[in-house]
Amino acid sequence: MNTSRHTYLDRQQRALAAAAVLKLDALLVSSLPNIRYLTGFTGDNALLLLEPFQNILFTDPRFLFQAQQESACRVRSARRPLLRDAAAWIQRRKLCRLGIEQHHLTYAQFRQLDDNLPDGFDLVPTERLVETLRTIKSPDEIALIRQSALLTCQALEQTVPLLRPGVTELDIAAELVYHMRKLGADGPAFDPIVAFGRNSSLPHARPGANQLKRKDIVLIDCGAFHRGYASDLTRVFFCGTPPSAIRRLHKAVVEAQQAALDAARPGVRAARVDQAARRVLRIHGLARAFLHATGHGLGLEIHELPRLGASERSRLEPGMAVTIEPGVYLQKSGGIRIEDTVVIRQNGCDVLTPASKELFII
Amino acid sequence: MNTSRHTYLDRQQRALAAAAVLKLDALLVSSLPNIRYLTGFTGDNALLLLEPFQNILFTDPRFLFQAQQESACRVRSARRPLLRDAAAWIQRRKLCRLGIEQHHLTYAQFRQLDDNLPDGFDLVPTERLVETLRTIKSPDEIALIRQSALLTCQALEQTVPLLRPGVTELDIAAELVYHMRKLGADGPAFDPIVAFGRNSSLPHARPGANQLKRKDIVLIDCGAFHRGYASDLTRVFFCGTPPSAIRRLHKAVVEAQQAALDAARPGVRAARVDQAARRVLRIHGLARAFLHATGHGLGLEIHELPRLGASERSRLEPGMAVTIEPGVYLQKSGGIRIEDTVVIRQNGCDVLTPASKELFII
Repeated sequence: MNTSRHTYLDRQQRALAAAAVLKLDALLVSSLPNIRYLTGFTGDNALLLLEPFQNILFTDPRFLFQAQQESACRVRSARRPLLRDAAAWIQRRKLCRLGIEQHHLTYAQFRQLDDNLPDGFDLVPTERLVETLRTIKSPDEIALIRQSALLTCQALEQTVPLLRPGVTELDIAAELVYHMRKLGADGPAFDPIVAFGRNSSLPHARPGANQLKRKDIVLIDCGAFHRGYASDLTRVFFCGTPPSAIRRLHKAVVEAQQAALDAARPGVRAARVDQAARRVLRIHGLARAFLHATGHGLGLEIHELPRLGASERSRLEPGMAVTIEPGVYLQKSGGIRIEDTVVIRQNGCDVLTPASKELFII
Repeated sequence: MNTSRHTYLDRQQRALAAAAVLKLDALLVSSLPNIRYLTGFTGDNALLLLEPFQNILFTDPRFLFQAQQESACRVRSARRPLLRDAAAWIQRRKLCRLGIEQHHLTYAQFRQLDDNLPDGFDLVPTERLVETLRTIKSPDEIALIRQSALLTCQALEQTVPLLRPGVTELDIAAELVYHMRKLGADGPAFDPIVAFGRNSSLPHARPGANQLKRKDIVLIDCGAFHRGYASDLTRVFFCGTPPSAIRRLHKAVVEAQQAALDAARPGVRAARVDQAARRVLRIHGLARAFLHATGHGLGLEIHELPRLGASERSRLEPGMAVTIEPGVYLQKSGGIRIEDTVVIRQNGCDVLTPASKELFII
């Protein structure tokens, strides 16, 4: 992403403003996606210490050049564990009250940090400060998510012609990921789900040597990372002429998904979107077959805030990117899920995954 | 993996024996690879409570069927956070002293667990109990790692003919992963590193749109997951006739790698293997260009114990599966790393990755 230095400084300022509310001297960022969001660094090992007038990025020698190339931060590289290096630095800076990301530090890391700081030092667990900033995507970020979503749709389109009796779930997963990468993706955003027949009744089925047969449902859930940003898409196909029971299930899910899309607009609570889908499925007698939340935010990670679940009280805002993905899972008939990636706009939401939602017949 | 129920019971008994040394009533396992090792469950959300005469696997409704199919444990599925469900269960069982996996519980999760248990309840941080059991692979596990390693070698062999001027790093990464999957892999064990020219000087380079040109080093580091088990392989190629400086670098790394292979035998400290490689590179004046440890264990995860680093005092034992991968990284010339996956045997080590280590010319 050709994000400008100004953008990173702006994000850092907003993170510091959130930290100031908690009267923190500094914030120690340990989530790699948060570090990428705040600095541009994409390596696999880092800590970022954000202070009002200076930042420092800790990494190890493997990532030193990369950190210097990608970020405008001062970079420290140490062979010893980063947390110990950071603790020494924090002491030298005479900080007293440090925010930590409690969801991105293991209990062991917390203890290591605590043991390496003086008695009376105040470690303050923070609650997703940077993740909350990340929920509202900039126009540049939305453009990248849109490109990622289009790329995923194209990869699916290129793969569908290969669905024929005898092909395995693993073959189709291989083709999908191959097409994503050939289309320029960084890689898949998660291991694609390709589930034939009864496997489709497992919401998170793993592709196997299972071969496609006549009268199988085919459920494909896939997404790409493209220049750091994720997309997510699920569509369902049928091998042969679908019986009316399957058509009815499919129609109910499409209807539920449309109800959720219609409900997704600024000011609405996340739970309301979930309820909209659930209400439609209840009318069809399928409420108990819907085993998960209606959707989740996505961006630099495939699962971000907000979660569109039954008990989520946060409200949608323009610029949020989320999935809308109700599904029904019946052990006998199989599973059907329809999923789009969307972005919340002033007047509703924009669907970024334009693939058809018909029950495509193979 | 067709691991028998008996194998899982045996692993559980060994984990409980390690917990008994710490006088624990029970062990709460929160690492998913550890849960897979102990039960066979491969889903993405679970907690396992191991007690002397009963175990319980906590998951959510998405993974209920799968947990029942894959594991012989009693399964509880709850929509609320698993830790809260587990805490309620732990109270009902009147346990007093619970081991937790401090490296696999975030600080937030630790607090949630602690808040949901009575005052005076003893939460005991444990230090990689299950990971330590996992370091010694059974013959079945070694067979799977061997298959995974052969598959990785085959995928690389099928990809090498596509290396020609103009091809991009991303193209080669796409082909590699495609061939792995077509050969039956679950997927790549990590995003492959395909680095051309100066990118090869970044030990963890990420493939990009960079095109292969004459006089480029090509560094490929890749591995597959096959039926749950990882392998890891690095080889280096050259586009055109390599200058003598590159040949010398390559020869030094091959020599260092051979020294480490020769040193890898039961009873030897992990640090000794690292020293063996480092000593050879020092003789060639390349000690400072070797930016990482010589290797790492692998199995259900791509990075496991033991680490073959300069300060590792643990000793190698028969049945350990590790990588041996010294490398040198020079900003001007590029990087060269040679990596095999090996298993420690009574008399030394077996190399599981038979690909040639010649500096292959494209």
